[in-house]
Parts: sequence; structure tokens; C-alpha cells
Amino acid sequence: MIQRKLEVTYLPYDRTTRVPAGTTVFSAAHWIGLPIDSTCGGRGTCGKCKVRVIQGRRDAETADHRQLRPSEIEDGWRLSCQARVYEDMTCEVPQLLRVPKAATMGLGRLVILDPNVRKVYLELSEPSMEDQRSDVARLRDALTEEGHDMVAGVAVLRTLPPVFREAGFRVTAVLAGEQLVAVEAGDTTAECYGVAFDVGTTTLVGTLMNLRTGMAASVLSTLNGQAPFGADVISRISHGMNGPEAIQELQDAVVGTMNTVLGELYRETGVTPQQTYEAVVVGNVFGIDPTPLSMSPFTPAFMDELSVAAREIGLQIHPHGYIQTLPALGAYVGADIVAGVLATGVAREDRIRVFVDVGTNGEIVLGSAQRALATAAPAGPAFEGSQIKCGMRATVGAIEGVQLSDRVELQIIGGDVPPEGICGSGLVDAVAQLLLAGLLEYSGRFKKPEDVPHHPLHDRLIDVDGMRAFLLADGVYLTQRDIRELQFAKGSIATGIKVLMDILGVTVDDLDEVLLGGSFGSYLNPESAKIIGLVPPVAVDRIIAVGNSAGEGAKIALLSYRERQVAFELPSRIEYIELSGRSDFNDSFISVLGFPQLAPIQ
Amino acid sequence: MIQRKLEVTYLPYDRTTRVPAGTTVFSAAHWIGLPIDSTCGGRGTCGKCKVRVIQGRRDAETADHRQLRPSEIEDGWRLSCQARVYEDMTCEVPQLLRVPKAATMGLGRLVILDPNVRKVYLELSEPSMEDQRSDVARLRDALTEEGHDMVAGVAVLRTLPPVFREAGFRVTAVLAGEQLVAVEAGDTTAECYGVAFDVGTTTLVGTLMNLRTGMAASVLSTLNGQAPFGADVISRISHGMNGPEAIQELQDAVVGTMNTVLGELYRETGVTPQQTYEAVVVGNVFGIDPTPLSMSPFTPAFMDELSVAAREIGLQIHPHGYIQTLPALGAYVGADIVAGVLATGVAREDRIRVFVDVGTNGEIVLGSAQRALATAAPAGPAFEGSQIKCGMRATVGAIEGVQLSDRVELQIIGGDVPPEGICGSGLVDAVAQLLLAGLLEYSGRFKKPEDVPHHPLHDRLIDVDGMRAFLLADGVYLTQRDIRELQFAKGSIATGIKVLMDILGVTVDDLDEVLLGGSFGSYLNPESAKIIGLVPPVAVDRIIAVGNSAGEGAKIALLSYRERQVAFELPSRIEYIELSGRSDFNDSFISVLGFPQLAPIQ
Repeated sequence: MIQRKLEVTYLPYDRTTRVPAGTTVFSAAHWIGLPIDSTCGGRGTCGKCKVRVIQGRRDAETADHRQLRPSEIEDGWRLSCQARVYEDMTCEVPQLLRVPKAATMGLGRLVILDPNVRKVYLELSEPSMEDQRSDVARLRDALTEEGHDMVAGVAVLRTLPPVFREAGFRVTAVLAGEQLVAVEAGDTTAECYGVAFDVGTTTLVGTLMNLRTGMAASVLSTLNGQAPFGADVISRISHGMNGPEAIQELQDAVVGTMNTVLGELYRETGVTPQQTYEAVVVGNVFGIDPTPLSMSPFTPAFMDELSVAAREIGLQIHPHGYIQTLPALGAYVGADIVAGVLATGVAREDRIRVFVDVGTNGEIVLGSAQRALATAAPAGPAFEGSQIKCGMRATVGAIEGVQLSDRVELQIIGGDVPPEGICGSGLVDAVAQLLLAGLLEYSGRFKKPEDVPHHPLHDRLIDVDGMRAFLLADGVYLTQRDIRELQFAKGSIATGIKVLMDILGVTVDDLDEVLLGGSFGSYLNPESAKIIGLVPPVAVDRIIAVGNSAGEGAKIALLSYRERQVAFELPSRIEYIELSGRSDFNDSFISVLGFPQLAPIQ
Repeated sequence: MIQRKLEVTYLPYDRTTRVPAGTTVFSAAHWIGLPIDSTCGGRGTCGKCKVRVIQGRRDAETADHRQLRPSEIEDGWRLSCQARVYEDMTCEVPQLLRVPKAATMGLGRLVILDPNVRKVYLELSEPSMEDQRSDVARLRDALTEEGHDMVAGVAVLRTLPPVFREAGFRVTAVLAGEQLVAVEAGDTTAECYGVAFDVGTTTLVGTLMNLRTGMAASVLSTLNGQAPFGADVISRISHGMNGPEAIQELQDAVVGTMNTVLGELYRETGVTPQQTYEAVVVGNVFGIDPTPLSMSPFTPAFMDELSVAAREIGLQIHPHGYIQTLPALGAYVGADIVAGVLATGVAREDRIRVFVDVGTNGEIVLGSAQRALATAAPAGPAFEGSQIKCGMRATVGAIEGVQLSDRVELQIIGGDVPPEGICGSGLVDAVAQLLLAGLLEYSGRFKKPEDVPHHPLHDRLIDVDGMRAFLLADGVYLTQRDIRELQFAKGSIATGIKVLMDILGVTVDDLDEVLLGGSFGSYLNPESAKIIGLVPPVAVDRIIAVGNSAGEGAKIALLSYRERQVAFELPSRIEYIELSGRSDFNDSFISVLGFPQLAPIQ
């Protein structure tokens, strides 16, 4: 399945990356964030990305002959976007003439500002009897001179005659890749926006980005309008199985939410839909029949990235704007994880790291630039507060943090409100604290009050309907069954991690970092996660909550076509491991059901 | 402007073609109708189009390394769809393993049946825990094995899960080029249709083609629904200048007519819209603002070929089907002429021929494979029966043929009906006959009855409102002013031809054939056209009415992606000559206003 990787070394930086055969020298540089100049984005039309091949295959391609002088070709110069890696290579990269604009995003990643959407201001020559080129030919020729290829649909072409003439042939072309999105009168290069959407199960976050400065113009989050159709992915899938109308309902709900968010973002910033040319969306917004996902062997309709006209789903950006999605790694390891990998750089550095997004499924990516693996471990809804007696979602009134000493200290969402229940992060905290306080056995069994008569909290060990429980607050308690639910959930994820570690041949001592992604990961107490055995027992300062890594990845893909290209390649670079049916998963699962004192992940 | 052409010779056929630098060896072969095997249509994915380069540049491209064995590359074998011509070349083409299905179309052109729309029946492996590929990956892999690349939009991808599962993973993929149009349950390869539309100013002709057999399933013609907005192109343009609503009105009218024709074609044949995947359309159906066309320097919005989703204009073929247009050669030399060139082979053979489509503009293509020129000569509406006192369109009651001896014989459309007026072909015939009968001077001046007292028709020379005229029938006559109108119209076209002949450096003796295209050309009497000096004075048997060449070209483009490719390349192979402002046009024009006895085209 996995091919041997080939090494490309870039001089004078002396940086090396390993890529699959057939990758271009240009793309391989993106992988390690090394900037090679380009204005066409790797289409072989601008000629700026030339490198000198010092070692390795150096066949000249057609575009080389077009863009380079024969003497350059003789000297080994090649367009890096055309040169493909078929054996180990060493290349010399020319010094950049301009310092690229870059920003630190995600988990300390330096992202070069080079959006897929580009604006090019052109002063076209006016038609005359000597120059009767069509409007399109005139535009295309001017763009070619600037090193841009162009393809255009009829909807945009239709707008050319009036715009050209009203503007006296001084226009700004808006390109998304090589696709012509718009032609605007005059010089509008100062105004160029895109929007990044992280469509989570519960929450939808939209960030309006200024593609010229790389800064967020405004951010807004709201409840995903799909919530009424079920709180988790599985119940949404069930709803979707009711047929095409139900699928359409789901799509309408999420697109409606996105448009509400857009409306608010436009209102706040004064930016218009006409200035917003592209949306990078992480999440399914296209109304795909999810039925095959619901049953073995769990095959999705598709996992590839897609570029779709915004009007096709009615997203209110520029009428000829585009929606770009990111690919998925597997049936239950979606684009949010690809975005998270982009935001954290997992699988692109030499460090061995594990990225875990805890939810209904624990989605896990483990590895380094050498080799990386991914899987989804079915965790059930415990971490989302479901199936827990006093469980609730992470909204006002939910206990999200617990500290036990001689008394019970609670952290409640909304601050000074009475606790109404407990959410996932509170649950993890509570169980970790119960273990530390000696009120819970490592097997997961509550102690009886009479076993710990002198414990200051022994009277909190109560009986609820004949079942042992711990009283957190008036009317809010954890039952023995709740503990079992959590054990299954964390056991599944821990096992997923262990299976990947075994396949990769690494132990806990080899792990450089554990990254907790997703919205749940942001709230999780890393120490508690370690105590209950959800994550491998590395030093606590190496367990890092990375925040909304999916949204951050979407923003990165919006600001940098190079990073976007990396995202597109991730599915071919990360091996997907299916857990169900694996005997080592089942064996491990049993062995990690207890808490770590009994069976830590080794 | 014009680059030196390069020669490619194909062995063992020993056939040679001349192409611009950068053309692929594969495309160059289409130009002379030479079939090189291919299932992917020149995308470098099927590996079947290999040729052995015997003389000329033979750099191996990436696709060569992928598709060919090292020993083949060593021996000079290259994929002809990747090998570009940068110097004169000689290649050996392998014998075709199968005899391609071909048909004679247009003017004796052998067209190989190889439509852009292909159906591929696939028995996919079913998903399992060991093979969790997504539906798309499964489809793409199976198509790759058959040598097809695939790109797909979300609208089609959405249909995969239910179709795959209902059909037990036995499906037919419908590809238009590499675009996935549909996936159908079971083996539907027997049913594959496309429609060719010739959208003329007056008449719209639709032909439903069976893409499997290459036969027309049914043909239907009707009045273009745009007729109420003006009888000719200029008045349509004027209407279109009333703003976006007016443009939309024009588009709705023509699309409505096309859908009416489609509905009738479906009813007659039992073919369904779902089985009709592509429409090749000759004519503007996209609602483009025509304003810039109406004034100097006459620059159109675009002249390129377009591929547009059928649903974008509401054409009732397969919901994910496509519309393909052909490119234009110049502002007033449209896709109908490109289709005509395709149907006649002008500019692709060694013979020197002139193709003339007579209408409001005389559109002219002159030349051979060595060099070809095109222009549009403004003729005014005389040939369409406008600006002629008793003129009318070619409908029931119109005189379409005239024979003068000792009496007047008329051919009337509709047969045994009283003549109501005279249409363009009747006008040309009448004037030619008047010249032959000695009733019209070569200057274009009517003789007076007293000049020809013994002529059996001298009493037909009448006076209408103080102007000389000839009485054709009760209430139908030709006035002196009508004759002047015709002189200007034919003079303009004759001058256009002469200017092109001068530029090409040929005389009447060098002309092998004169081809009369367009609907008007079909009805024109070649001898009359020669007598009035509309066309150069070659032997009458070398003046050929080629019928509905535009519609025939559209059908050829539908049945053969190779011919379609040739059509796309025509604008870069035929030089466009702008007549207005040329002093030689004005000079010639004056000299050919009279009829040939005075100033034949030399």
C-alpha cells in the first residue's frame, strides 16, 4: 500500500523532505513550508519557480522549453512545478526577490500569504480596427503576460462587454486558481475577501478573511441549524436516510446557517458579498446521501476535495464565487481532521506526534514526516454528555471543571449560575478527580462510603435507585453506569491510539507531543485526560489543547494555495487504518477499559 | 501574425500535414482525418496513441514514462497526444487493431465515429472491510483501468451512493471528455444520444443523433423564436442593446424554441432527455450583450468555444448534460462558418477553394491547407428579401426561381399558389435572367421598352412611381432601386472574395471550387450567382451548393471529438481579414458594382 518515499533536498537551505514518486519539486517544497517563487500557482505559466537540478532526473518538459532559455535548460534549470520526483533529488532554489508576507497560524505554523484568489489590475489596450481581438482574447493575452492562465464560464464572460466599456478598459481580473471569477471596473485590488467555515456538529464558525492582509476581518459562531435533526452525526445520518427530501432539509439548514453568519459578518465589516470570492468549508454542506456511511463497510460517497460554484448551493458570496472543501482521510476521519493536520503540522515534521479529536468518534492521526497513520475509534456520545444520567451539552449551567479536595469545587459554564448537569470535559475532570481522591477504584468501581469512612467527601458517595453514585451538586451526580460509559468511550480512543502506535512501532517514550483538537479538546483538562487514560501518559506539558484546529486549518487553506495543495495530498500521504474487525483492537480494548494504574498505555 | 507551419509526415500512409508549432502529433493527424487509436481522447491516460518518432524532436514527457516501457521509449515510441511539433517530423503510426466506424458527412468528408460522449460499463468490486474506498475512488480506479480520466461535480457525485447500491455496483459511467455526466444502473451503453442545433437567424434545426450508430434518430426544423425581435442579425443586436432584460428575452426565445424542438424529437423517437447527454450548438444562445458588435471596431465579447452546463440556460437534455459551442473566426464570421468549414474540409485540403455563406453579411473563407483566410463582407439585407420593393422571406408565395424566354416562368415556394413577392434566390435568378435576356445593361440600368421594341418581354418593362421596373407577375416587380440594392450586396461580397484572393495571391484560374453554404446558398442557382458576379467565374460545375453546412458541421462535431478538436483550432489556423477601412476593399468595391461583362472578378 505505502510506496517508498523519495528525498528532495533544497539548497542553499539544506532542507530535505520525503515525498511519493510523481510529486512535483514545487509541491514537495510546500510540504516543508519552503517558499519557491510563483505567481501562477504551479501551472507552468509564470516561469518564476525555476530551480537548478543538481542531482536527479532532469528531463525538460514542454513548459520548460516555453519558459526557459536554452542556456538555462543546459545548466539544469527547470520549472519546479513541472519537474516530478522519480528518484532522490537535490535542487538549488534561487533567493526570493521579495520577502513573502507570512503569518503564524494554527500551532506555530508559518503560513505564507499566497491565496488561491488573486486580483490582477490590467490596463488593456482599447479595440481598434487594427486590433479587433475579442474582449476575452484581450483579457487572456494581458493575463498571460502577467503569467496567469485563465479559464472562464459563460456567466462571467457575459459581464465583460459592459464592464470593459464602462471602465475604459481598466479592469481588475479576479482569478481563483485559473478560473476567472469576476472582472471589475477599475483597480479593486485593495478589496479582496474570502470566508472560512468550520461546520461542526453543534457549532458553525465563520471567519471573514482579508486576503490582501491575511487578517481576519470578523469572526462569528452560532449553533449549526442542523441541530434540530439530531445532536450527533449518527442521528443526522439516520435523518438523512429518510430520503432525498430529508437530505435536502439538512442541506438547507446548514446553508441557511452559513448565510445568516455571512449576513452578520458583512454587516459588521461593511464588506459586501461581491468582494467575497471564495469560501473554504470544512464539513458536509452538499447534501450527500449518508446511507452507506451508516452500515458496514462504511464507504462514503467520496472523500476528495471539491470545488463547487457558490450558487449551486445558494451560498451568499460573489455570484460567481466558489466553495472549496478539503478531502477526508477515511469514512469517519473527515475534512476537519485534514484541516487540523494542516493547522498543527502533524505528519509534516520529524517529531512523532499524535493528534486526537475527541467526539462521537475519536479521530486520531499519529506519526511524523516519515510515516503517518489515521483512524477513527467509535467512542459513543459520552463525551458529548449523552447517555450520562446528568449529562448535558457544554452550554450555560453545565459543570465543565471539577476539583475535589476536602470539598467539591465546580467550574460552571456561565459562571455564577446553579449547576444543571455535567458536560464532557466536566465528566473527564470529575472521574480523574475521583480517582485521585481515592473514591474510585482503578477498575472503575465506586468505593462504598463505609470503605472510606474518614474521607471528607465520603457522604457524597450515595445510592441512586440501587446504584452507587457520587453527588457533585444538588441534583447532579455521577452514577456507576456513567463511569462505565466513560470507560468504554475513553477505552475505545485509547485503544485506537495504541493500535496506531503498535503499527508505527513506537512507544510512549517516542511520543513528542499529544495534541487535543476539536472544540471538545479545547476544554479538556490535559492532566485529567492523562489520568483517566484517554491519552498516552506523556509529561503533562506535552499534552496540548490546540483549540479550533479545523477552523484554523480552513483559514490556512484560504490564505495559502500552497498549504491547500498540501491538504489535498494528505489522503495519499497518511495511511488509513480501519479498526473494526481488527483482533488487536478488540484485545487492546479489553485491556485498557480500566484506568491507567491498572493498565496504562505502554 | 502568421507563423511558419511545420510539416508532420505519417508513415506508412505517407501523408503530410502542416501545423503551427506546439500542435500535438495526435491533433495534427485529425487535421487530415488520419485515425490514431485512442480511448481517452488525447489526455495521455490510455496509452493507445503511441507513434514512433523517426525524425524530429523526441523528448519523453511524464505521461510517456507512465504509459510506455523503457525499451519503447528507447526505440522512439511516444504518446502522440503528448508529443508536440516543434520542428518538421516523421512518425510511424501502428496499424489500427479495429477498423473505426466511419460515415461520410458534409461534403464527402469521412468522419470517424468517436463521440466526445462515451459510455463505459463497469462491474465494480463491492465495498468490504478490506476495501473501503469511497464510491468515487472506486469509480475512478475502474475508469483509470480502462484508460479514462475523470473529473466530477458534486451534483453527479451526489447520485453515486443510491445508484451503486440499487445496481449492485454494476453501472455505466457517462463521460463527456473527462467530465462525468452521469452514472446509470446496469449496462446502458446501447442508449446514447446527443443533439446538434443549427440556430440560424430565421430557422432553427435540431437533429437528434444516436451516438452509438452515428445515425440521425430524427430531424426537426422550425422558426427561430427570436424572429419577433427582428428579421436579421442587426435588428436583433439593436433589440439586445435595450439592456439586460431585452438580452434575456432574446435568450429565452431561442432556448424556448430549442426545447420545443427537443420535446418533439423525444416524442417522435421515444428517446428521453436522460439519454441525451450533449448538445452541440452553432449560434449564440447564451444571452451575450451584443452592443460592442454594433459599432466600430466591432469586437465581440468572446469568440472561443464554450462548454456550458445545460441547466445553466435550461436546455432540456440530461440534467447534468452539457452544451458545446464552436468558436468564431471573427466578429461577423461566426461558429456557423467554422461548422461549414468542418463540413466542407476547406482549409484542410490541398485544393484551393472558396466557401461563401451569403446573408446580411457575406462570410467568406478562402484557401487550402497551405494557408487560409476569412472575412465578412457587409451585404445588407437584400439577399434576405428586405429593402426590396416586392421582397419577402423565402416562405410560401415567394418567387424563388425565374426563367425568361419569350415568356416569364416562375418557380414559387408552395407550388401552385399565386406569387406574393420575391425572395433572395429569386432576385438573383431574375437579375441574371434579365441580363441574359438583354433587358438589363451591364451597368445595372434597366433598358427602356423603346430600346428593345421587338423583345417579346418588352411590355414587362414598366414604370412604377417614375422609376423603371420589370413586371414579374401581377403586383410583383423589380424596380431600378432593387437592382441597385442587389448590386451593392453582391458587389460587397464579390469584393470580399477578391480582396482575399489578392492577399492569397491567387486568380480565378487557381480556384478549384466555389462552395455556396448556408440556407440561402442551398437555394441559389449557381449559374445565376456567377452571371451576376456574386462568385468568381469558374466553370458552373465547380460552383457547388453545400446545403446546410452549419448543421452538418454541428453533427460532425457531435460524432467526432477529433473533428471537434479541429474546429477548436480553426481560429488559429485561418487568418481573419478585416475589410472595413481597407483601401483595396473600397477600390475594388467600386469596380465590381457593375455586372461581370463590365468587370468580372479576375
